[in-house]
Amino acid sequence: MKPLGIGLIGTGYMGKCHALAWNAVKTVFGDVERPRLVHLAEANAGLAEARASEFGFEKSTADWRALIADPEVDVVSVTTPNQFHAEMAIAAHEAGKHVWCEKPMAPAYADAERMLETAERSGKVAVLGYNYIQNPVMQHIRTLLGEGAIGTVNHVRVEMDEDFMADPDVFFYWKSELAAGYGALDDFAVHPLSLLWYLFGHVEAVITDMVKPYADRPLSAGGRRAVENHDAANVLMRLGGGISAVLMANRAAWGRKGRIALQIYGSKGAILYDQERMNEFELYQADGRGSEQGFRKILAAPAHRPYDRFIPAPGHGLGFNDLKIIECRELIRAISGEPSSIVTFKDGLRIEKSVHAMAQSFHERRWIEIGRM
Amino acid sequence: MKPLGIGLIGTGYMGKCHALAWNAVKTVFGDVERPRLVHLAEANAGLAEARASEFGFEKSTADWRALIADPEVDVVSVTTPNQFHAEMAIAAHEAGKHVWCEKPMAPAYADAERMLETAERSGKVAVLGYNYIQNPVMQHIRTLLGEGAIGTVNHVRVEMDEDFMADPDVFFYWKSELAAGYGALDDFAVHPLSLLWYLFGHVEAVITDMVKPYADRPLSAGGRRAVENHDAANVLMRLGGGISAVLMANRAAWGRKGRIALQIYGSKGAILYDQERMNEFELYQADGRGSEQGFRKILAAPAHRPYDRFIPAPGHGLGFNDLKIIECRELIRAISGEPSSIVTFKDGLRIEKSVHAMAQSFHERRWIEIGRM
Amino acid sequence: MKPLGIGLIGTGYMGKCHALAWNAVKTVFGDVERPRLVHLAEANAGLAEARASEFGFEKSTADWRALIADPEVDVVSVTTPNQFHAEMAIAAHEAGKHVWCEKPMAPAYADAERMLETAERSGKVAVLGYNYIQNPVMQHIRTLLGEGAIGTVNHVRVEMDEDFMADPDVFFYWKSELAAGYGALDDFAVHPLSLLWYLFGHVEAVITDMVKPYADRPLSAGGRRAVENHDAANVLMRLGGGISAVLMANRAAWGRKGRIALQIYGSKGAILYDQERMNEFELYQADGRGSEQGFRKILAAPAHRPYDRFIPAPGHGLGFNDLKIIECRELIRAISGEPSSIVTFKDGLRIEKSVHAMAQSFHERRWIEIGRM
Amino acid sequence: MKPLGIGLIGTGYMGKCHALAWNAVKTVFGDVERPRLVHLAEANAGLAEARASEFGFEKSTADWRALIADPEVDVVSVTTPNQFHAEMAIAAHEAGKHVWCEKPMAPAYADAERMLETAERSGKVAVLGYNYIQNPVMQHIRTLLGEGAIGTVNHVRVEMDEDFMADPDVFFYWKSELAAGYGALDDFAVHPLSLLWYLFGHVEAVITDMVKPYADRPLSAGGRRAVENHDAANVLMRLGGGISAVLMANRAAWGRKGRIALQIYGSKGAILYDQERMNEFELYQADGRGSEQGFRKILAAPAHRPYDRFIPAPGHGLGFNDLKIIECRELIRAISGEPSSIVTFKDGLRIEKSVHAMAQSFHERRWIEIGRM
Repeated sequence: MKPLGIGLIGTGYMGKCHALAWNAVKTVFGDVERPRLVHLAEANAGLAEARASEFGFEKSTADWRALIADPEVDVVSVTTPNQFHAEMAIAAHEAGKHVWCEKPMAPAYADAERMLETAERSGKVAVLGYNYIQNPVMQHIRTLLGEGAIGTVNHVRVEMDEDFMADPDVFFYWKSELAAGYGALDDFAVHPLSLLWYLFGHVEAVITDMVKPYADRPLSAGGRRAVENHDAANVLMRLGGGISAVLMANRAAWGRKGRIALQIYGSKGAILYDQERMNEFELYQADGRGSEQGFRKILAAPAHRPYDRFIPAPGHGLGFNDLKIIECRELIRAISGEPSSIVTFKDGLRIEKSVHAMAQSFHERRWIEIGRM
Repeated sequence: MKPLGIGLIGTGYMGKCHALAWNAVKTVFGDVERPRLVHLAEANAGLAEARASEFGFEKSTADWRALIADPEVDVVSVTTPNQFHAEMAIAAHEAGKHVWCEKPMAPAYADAERMLETAERSGKVAVLGYNYIQNPVMQHIRTLLGEGAIGTVNHVRVEMDEDFMADPDVFFYWKSELAAGYGALDDFAVHPLSLLWYLFGHVEAVITDMVKPYADRPLSAGGRRAVENHDAANVLMRLGGGISAVLMANRAAWGRKGRIALQIYGSKGAILYDQERMNEFELYQADGRGSEQGFRKILAAPAHRPYDRFIPAPGHGLGFNDLKIIECRELIRAISGEPSSIVTFKDGLRIEKSVHAMAQSFHERRWIEIGRM
Repeated sequence: MKPLGIGLIGTGYMGKCHALAWNAVKTVFGDVERPRLVHLAEANAGLAEARASEFGFEKSTADWRALIADPEVDVVSVTTPNQFHAEMAIAAHEAGKHVWCEKPMAPAYADAERMLETAERSGKVAVLGYNYIQNPVMQHIRTLLGEGAIGTVNHVRVEMDEDFMADPDVFFYWKSELAAGYGALDDFAVHPLSLLWYLFGHVEAVITDMVKPYADRPLSAGGRRAVENHDAANVLMRLGGGISAVLMANRAAWGRKGRIALQIYGSKGAILYDQERMNEFELYQADGRGSEQGFRKILAAPAHRPYDRFIPAPGHGLGFNDLKIIECRELIRAISGEPSSIVTFKDGLRIEKSVHAMAQSFHERRWIEIGRM
Repeated sequence: MKPLGIGLIGTGYMGKCHALAWNAVKTVFGDVERPRLVHLAEANAGLAEARASEFGFEKSTADWRALIADPEVDVVSVTTPNQFHAEMAIAAHEAGKHVWCEKPMAPAYADAERMLETAERSGKVAVLGYNYIQNPVMQHIRTLLGEGAIGTVNHVRVEMDEDFMADPDVFFYWKSELAAGYGALDDFAVHPLSLLWYLFGHVEAVITDMVKPYADRPLSAGGRRAVENHDAANVLMRLGGGISAVLMANRAAWGRKGRIALQIYGSKGAILYDQERMNEFELYQADGRGSEQGFRKILAAPAHRPYDRFIPAPGHGLGFNDLKIIECRELIRAISGEPSSIVTFKDGLRIEKSVHAMAQSFHERRWIEIGRM
């Protein structure tokens, strides 16, 4: 079988992360073909060439359309800023390529809808880069929930916090413009929403509060400019099956670096997880003698598949970049028609619909029913 | 000076807790008079006598009105079930006694209002038993906030969780009756609300979601009965100064035993606290070199007053009952006309008003502005 | 039955702690007689009188021998500095009193031996204040070990660390004099040794290393003085049953405030405990599916007796001073001839023998067999 | 410049780990040449071919001497079982190759000495796979120590614990044979010793206790066989500069999975680290107001080089395998004659000398001075 030909558009952090995954996926998993790294596109030709050398790609270009037109390219990794996703993904699908696009789909919902339509028309694979669901610990949590390890889930809380906007003296930059989106909600909340979707299905109703910790910010050239979107958002939600949930997202939360803290309560126990300690989770099961019940801290281990493909011993730990390698293998499985655990454009669109509903519920100060798509 | 004569109504857990405080307050603090434990009332005369002996009271009675009429009693501890608070506190105040009443004031807001009116008319001290604010760690957090240690606070989250209603097989009992109140909201949420009030002032606007993890419960006599109130409540709030807050209260949260977890985010740092580890808190300050910034776990120490009155060495730990001793001394200071840190009936009424507003916002599915009382 | 008459010698921190216990023990436990606080002795007559008032004692004296001669005194709490223990305890026992003496017994082993001899001759109760064993969590750990919850124990580590000697700029004071003892070993290590004794029995063989983090210290009057004892000690040990153990004690360990960290490994699991978080412990049991095995954090709860006598709800926490109340009740039970959990002078002497053997093994740079007393 | 030609001997876990590193090093770091994966050797020819395909090597062989003879191979990764290290590393060095050999060097000290001699004679690079020192967090700890962030270090504790030998019902296998070495000491303790060396230099004096938690083990064929080496070892040590240290290593410690817990105490603070949470460390600094001093939990961040080459955002976490990529780059830098942070054969031999001294001190029941090599 001819190896998959890979094209990579964008060489920022996510571009590098995709490159690492394409380089490693065969060595880690063995059970897929080693992909052929064919073509890399980056706006600047010199940078494109340098990165192609670093990342191990055969060719480079400053024209991403040339990459998409390349017949040796079978899959296109789209890792450019969000506003370019729609154009590139649609072009790639129209050219008959599989697409692996970083999240979120697009700032405008209509663009995201077009992405899905084109993807479905193309018949090709269309995967979004929601890599947090790929953590073996998260996959094991899902297994535990399916087994009823904590009974029927009735309440969930999820917090996503970082602090890159926490300093009021940070200069105004594009992230605070309305054009960049709602703020914490689309910049951030899509990640915990992908976890909620993965574990429980889609959000059905929401009411949101959004806040601006800082009304304005200094301009590097002097003076100040009003902040146009919201660095923090809090959402009351109902999920399917009557589960109540609370989502809190804050990109101005001092001290938090990569926190996605999940609390899941069921009729027989509870599960806790925090992305900042992504190699462990806690499980409380209400069985046995009460005097010894407690939250059990469980370290990632080979039994939590596919941790075993990386390390044969427990407690040694995967890294953030390893999640992208797992996602890459799932993508390849999807391309091969095998069962796989991915966020498709269809699922991703539903996540983005939730985000828009949250913003609407804030502006209209009322609950919004999203319905089941 | 004549020692204060103490009357205690009720000898359940809170009655015992008051008794321990009255016995210990002088030995711990030295700077107050040793109270005289005069009279104890308990519905059953034999039990009253037994408890008076255990708790060190001189007299006992099955008639609480006799206690209130006792001229040797100066202060009345009211520790009976909530529905009796109003009648007893009002009678005590009318008899010219100081009152130390367990929280909340009363299930019905009108009763709580009458309690406040009578208290104010009497000119006597009227203190509610919100002991969590008395933790030296909490007092130190308040000091730090006042000093600007984390800058201007802009966001707060507080969770109060226990698991005594988490088992769906627990028989239906009075806590699930509508007559017992809203459920988690008044059973629980008043505690975190007292902390919010202590640190930030009153709640100004709310929207609430409430849930029944279990629609019905088994009856001990066979059959099942519908649960009438809500074991969990989630609230989006605005506090004074534009602080956004989220309150989550759940008495059906498996694994949580006495959790009151507080997250406070400001413009220069953050503070974390959890009542389950009441002898420590965490502080993040965004100063110094970034490569060494982190949440600092600070153990309770003599510098956190009045920890030093209990133990001269850091890291040795106070207990839950010690908080009541501190509250007792603050009460005595209030009686002496000294500055004290207490929750008065006036403050308590405002807390209860918030709770009623939360319930209303749930039923009307809209934001409620509480205003500033 | 006539209530026990209490005499208290010494009103420093431990004196206050005893006073709190004598005041509270009846209210907490109910099942003992309320003691009568008869006589308090303190070197300065004025201070003695003030403390008697604060602590609730009827009489005061500057002459501790008057207290011991007082026929209304049945039990004597000895809480003075270590060098006075022997004289006072011996006098009290000779006067036919029960004795509750703070640890350690005496700086010189011969004095400690005399204390035991006199105690045994008197036929009275002789209890040492090793209160850490009274923690309900520790008692429950002992129960679990007895039940075989972690199988047969084969390895133990215990660390006791504080930081009051960690600053090299602290002036030289008596704690650094040879006359004050070995340093960390007798100042500190007796506490973890009491836990090892409580859980596993006595130490059988040791080899020790001792260190002076700082060779000398500044004098408050100027100049410097050589430090004469060792702020840190590390010991390899063998306990009964072939258990290997490591003891580390350090009073110059920055950041540690009241740490007594215990690790217990057995053939079926492990138990962890740290005094700085005295209301919890961790239990690992190697049963069930491997993918969910982990250390379980168990919060103190009513099922861990006698926590229930203080608080009826789990997770609310006892304080350090509460341990002394439990010890006080065990003492009263011992006086009443009931089974009780205490460290007698006999057990205490064996602990001190271990300490002297450790120091010897350091000086002779060899293993010392202590034997079974 | 011609790319480095890589040969890999062995394809167990460590072989795979080396392969991942060789595949990723250029993409991660950019500043080195992309190596050429030339030749892979594995005892079984079919397996060799399969692994070469998986790992991306051009050629495969069942004869490792053919690999070493291959003129296109510049560097040889030796990842076979310990008893083969000496023969292969020596042959590689004699053939003029650079060698990257997994730790430890060899079971017999004389073999390890020969490895060093040959390496030095060859003038080629000779690196041991002590990857734990490559953790950016560990590198940052070293920087902090060098800056005096915790003053002068005076005491260190290190524990290395796993539980793969904790179950007494595990069948006897080669790890329990004397031929396999001392047990925990050489199987394990070399790792923490590499950290001690990296941070503080070499061990100068030791006394050791070693234990067999289980005297014998069941044989899979029935019957039992005596265990010949020690699953746990405890060592008192002196490092250079008068630092006292304690090393505890236990491969039968239930609940521990990949624990290497380090406590470092200095004159101005303390540092804590645990490999099971390799993306964080704790720092206590005794400065500022005492009431806010505490251990600060610091998450791995770009400022901790070279974390930034993997991820540009803090708190996202590296994995165990990433450490090998860093080591690989340091190896390449060493080959290029650039300054690098590696454990050479010379350093490794000194570590192994320490281990032999520890075993000797146990058998002779006395302190052994190792001296400074």
